[in-house]
Amino acid sequence: MLILHTPDSLLHDPEKYVRRGETVPHPEQARRYHVLLGAARDAGHVPELAGDHGLDPILAVHTPGHVEFFRTAWSRRDEWPTRSDEIFTGHFARPHMHRRPEGFLGLVGYHTADTSTPIRAGTWQAIYGSAQVAISGADAALRDRRAYALCRPPGHHAYADSAGGFCFFNNAAIAARRLQAKTGGKVAILDIDVHHGNGTQGIFYQDPDVLTVSIHGDPTNYFPYYTGYADETGEGAGAGFNLNLPLQHGLGDGTFVATVKHAVERIRDHRPAALVVALGLDASEHDPIGALRVTTAGFVATARAIAKAGLPTVLVQEGGYLSEVLPANLAGFLDAFDAVA
Amino acid sequence: MLILHTPDSLLHDPEKYVRRGETVPHPEQARRYHVLLGAARDAGHVPELAGDHGLDPILAVHTPGHVEFFRTAWSRRDEWPTRSDEIFTGHFARPHMHRRPEGFLGLVGYHTADTSTPIRAGTWQAIYGSAQVAISGADAALRDRRAYALCRPPGHHAYADSAGGFCFFNNAAIAARRLQAKTGGKVAILDIDVHHGNGTQGIFYQDPDVLTVSIHGDPTNYFPYYTGYADETGEGAGAGFNLNLPLQHGLGDGTFVATVKHAVERIRDHRPAALVVALGLDASEHDPIGALRVTTAGFVATARAIAKAGLPTVLVQEGGYLSEVLPANLAGFLDAFDAVA
Repeated sequence: MLILHTPDSLLHDPEKYVRRGETVPHPEQARRYHVLLGAARDAGHVPELAGDHGLDPILAVHTPGHVEFFRTAWSRRDEWPTRSDEIFTGHFARPHMHRRPEGFLGLVGYHTADTSTPIRAGTWQAIYGSAQVAISGADAALRDRRAYALCRPPGHHAYADSAGGFCFFNNAAIAARRLQAKTGGKVAILDIDVHHGNGTQGIFYQDPDVLTVSIHGDPTNYFPYYTGYADETGEGAGAGFNLNLPLQHGLGDGTFVATVKHAVERIRDHRPAALVVALGLDASEHDPIGALRVTTAGFVATARAIAKAGLPTVLVQEGGYLSEVLPANLAGFLDAFDAVA
Repeated sequence: MLILHTPDSLLHDPEKYVRRGETVPHPEQARRYHVLLGAARDAGHVPELAGDHGLDPILAVHTPGHVEFFRTAWSRRDEWPTRSDEIFTGHFARPHMHRRPEGFLGLVGYHTADTSTPIRAGTWQAIYGSAQVAISGADAALRDRRAYALCRPPGHHAYADSAGGFCFFNNAAIAARRLQAKTGGKVAILDIDVHHGNGTQGIFYQDPDVLTVSIHGDPTNYFPYYTGYADETGEGAGAGFNLNLPLQHGLGDGTFVATVKHAVERIRDHRPAALVVALGLDASEHDPIGALRVTTAGFVATARAIAKAGLPTVLVQEGGYLSEVLPANLAGFLDAFDAVA
């Protein structure tokens, strides 16, 4: 299948992640782009540079303020009191404090949610490019029935107005809105990243036309902590159109694949015109920040189960961090998906 | 006047503050206790150890979950993956993510709001003690017309369910509830700390019986960024009972004292039975993290203006960081207040 991608992904290569008060190397490295592209290409899939579809498809998901903030943030770095290659804060908008301030210092903590999304010189180009990859992937999926969008940085923790969890723009949500616009039909998103797709849930929580399903490690004591529970099912018109399937930590292929099959049943019931898979690979048993024990064979079985839905599908890369099995897990997934779809 | 205090304040001496991605020494040091106590005692005021009034007066302001979290946090440190003298996180509950999780990792980011409130071995004793100082100060003010509550850690950035901005329990709010309970009348809080008293505002935002007034540096590009604007006036039954008076950065005595006088007029109109002054001293021209240029003479004039309200008043210590003039500013304030009251 086609691999949509952009080398602009390399322009955001975060160094630091302030984790529990300690500065640690950032796991969401630019090198993931090379590793994932190499794995997909070596497996026989065909790289194609993403087109430029402009800001409108991004603005179909994100607030104008969120987009404008990241477009201009680095050019405003003189307003930041500390000289550094990375801008990030420890003060954030809160449930009781959600007013959008005018000053740059407060805007950083309004449009970022935690200490994991440093803003660098190339961040805008990388996140804009990553969103374009998702859009191009959606278009390719409608032409070719399936496509792999190698999005980096990832997206599923980003809300309409805030970054977080290594994510800035919600690529899967952007792809879903694109598929909706092009097909005129309903859409579903299946998120198999090991972390709950909280931003995606938030964006579509009141929307009955975009079914959101997320399979992830139980968030009781795991990122993102504050969302991802089974009783979050949507609200207003969207009630019943969000499905969270949290899994006990340490579970492996059997439960994971069975849960994917259950999710696919729910997706079929929704009768979507197209599907977005938020393709995290960090459910892997070897992922450095994972919580489950999925093997390469498990990812192959997962891909088959999803492909059997028979829907035009864009596979949008989410998490999945550097380990020896990351290339094999991606290749296994893509091959199996391609064989069925 | 009496100085209510407790040496338990010394048991929370934070080392680190993760500020804009950099680890810097924490400005809210335990040594402030010695400096403030020494300044007040040298000015002829009389130290008295705070009594122990138990948890009920704290629970009149804070949620049971908030109190229980801090009471047990250090004993749960084995649930924290990193060994350190200080527990703090970079992941927080957010406007879209406000569910209280069961696990310890998420609870830390639910009950703290930023990277400035590390939890240490002695934190509970210090914040419990600081709250007791406020309660004892409120009681003393009803007996003697005025009292100085040397609270440390400070409190005015703490909400009912979250710490933040160096604050854990909202001592001024606890004192206000105590005064209400003891007098059966209305109460006012005047916050002259250079930072907006956001937690205090949040706690009483719907309460018409506790008037909250805060004079502070304009939060447009200054902590706490997301609150402290003039158009925040209360809501529901509390509409009209919150007054924010943000000041342009760099202003000095003239505007500051005039603003205090304006605030005192509003407080008189409220006809409270008693007054809480959230006595930050960081509007000082020499404060290391301040934004205004108030001199010692300005604090003297401020104290006189507040004392002229003629109300039983507890002065609750908030911010004000180590500088050569901190002792003189406190002594000047207390002397002037005592002379008029």
